[in-house]
Amino acid sequence: MQALHIIKIGGNVIDNSENLHRFLKDFTALEGYKILIHGGGKVATQIGESMGIEAQMVDGRRITDIDTLRIVTMVYGGLINKNIVAQLQRYGTNAIGLTGADGDFIRAKKRPVKTIDYGFVGDLHEASINPGNIAKLLDSGFTPVFCALTHDGEGQMLNTNADTIASALAVALSALYETTLIYSFEKKGVLMDVNDDDSLIRDIDPERYEKLKAEKIIHSGMLPKLDNAFNAIGMGVKAVIIGHSDDLGQLKNKKGFGTRLSK
Amino acid sequence: MQALHIIKIGGNVIDNSENLHRFLKDFTALEGYKILIHGGGKVATQIGESMGIEAQMVDGRRITDIDTLRIVTMVYGGLINKNIVAQLQRYGTNAIGLTGADGDFIRAKKRPVKTIDYGFVGDLHEASINPGNIAKLLDSGFTPVFCALTHDGEGQMLNTNADTIASALAVALSALYETTLIYSFEKKGVLMDVNDDDSLIRDIDPERYEKLKAEKIIHSGMLPKLDNAFNAIGMGVKAVIIGHSDDLGQLKNKKGFGTRLSK
Repeated sequence: MQALHIIKIGGNVIDNSENLHRFLKDFTALEGYKILIHGGGKVATQIGESMGIEAQMVDGRRITDIDTLRIVTMVYGGLINKNIVAQLQRYGTNAIGLTGADGDFIRAKKRPVKTIDYGFVGDLHEASINPGNIAKLLDSGFTPVFCALTHDGEGQMLNTNADTIASALAVALSALYETTLIYSFEKKGVLMDVNDDDSLIRDIDPERYEKLKAEKIIHSGMLPKLDNAFNAIGMGVKAVIIGHSDDLGQLKNKKGFGTRLSK
Repeated sequence: MQALHIIKIGGNVIDNSENLHRFLKDFTALEGYKILIHGGGKVATQIGESMGIEAQMVDGRRITDIDTLRIVTMVYGGLINKNIVAQLQRYGTNAIGLTGADGDFIRAKKRPVKTIDYGFVGDLHEASINPGNIAKLLDSGFTPVFCALTHDGEGQMLNTNADTIASALAVALSALYETTLIYSFEKKGVLMDVNDDDSLIRDIDPERYEKLKAEKIIHSGMLPKLDNAFNAIGMGVKAVIIGHSDDLGQLKNKKGFGTRLSK
């Protein structure tokens, strides 16, 4: 089976030009099939504000009303995505910038209104990912670059969490490729002590994860990420790496980096 | 040789939701390989104004300064392109929305500064189009949807005229496909009398074109478009059709529409 790396970069990496360029060079140096997924960064909020549209939050969560959807479609799908693609082309990666609507690659369902109306937010489901269509791009030598947008198949664009897209892509593409999922952000990985970068935990398997949880060593903010990661591993993903965007280059040298989760 | 239709829609079609939807349905009904190229419409100017950035014109031409480039990258590459793609998916076309940076499909060179600095405007050259990479998409069953953006290969996005992109794509892809180029806009085609839609000229060959020019029958605004069209035909394009976006459906029924230019 051909190896595939699916790498998600967080907004903090995108907001820092130096970090972003280092990451994109390292991403280019990584051989074989690969897919990049990027989040939004602060620029969507800034552009919204410059247009007089303020982010609406309910219980700490962003609401995607029709104006916000227009802004994220412009900023995620246009400004950020195409500039990342142009930089990757400069470094030698034959990138194609995409939303889930393109190639019908990722469908979602508008989140049903219960107590909160999240607006044009799309939730993924079992049949969301079209691995056959994505494989056509990979097999043609292209490197897909996805932003955090999907569609419903009925003409509606939807805003969808980039972590969730990365995880769903990894699970669906595990049927075709030996898939490693990488969450690349501004921390070294999973730490024993959140204030000490040297306390990095190198490897976690399900047994150790249960222990770490029981001992309350893992920071509560990390729990959903790790639960999702082990869920993806249970569904066929070979390994999940959580680490700093600056350290991706170490993967090329066959060294590990960050925290590696596997069976 | 496989047939290929390359269709450019003007900003006036994009600005009118009813016209756009009719066009996208007719585009979907057209069988075989096809590529869509779209211009900008008024929305880029509107969004720029809402952000306090006014269009800068010199001698009637828009200057693409860095702020304008950000706006067109957002609006052309994000908002307009992805909404067209989502609608095409709804109607059953497996569209992929693209700029020239994606897949390294279209490179351009930043226009040199002579008397006027046009800013981040890209001019096409002989090696601009990468027909092999575009063929990979077509052969995989995807329908490319290009907006009026290119890149320079060095990480810089550039604003490039959509008519010029359409013509360059048609010429380059004529080496691989039997290519028809269609300019779809809000007029019936080339008219004997600009005020009379019934005065449509159905067919023009180079000989008749010389006569129409000599008799000063063709409106001066049409001359550059027709010169470009006959230039493309001279370089291998089978035919160029200039006609109303509402009439594209007649192509499916093997009827002609608009004005057909050919050898």
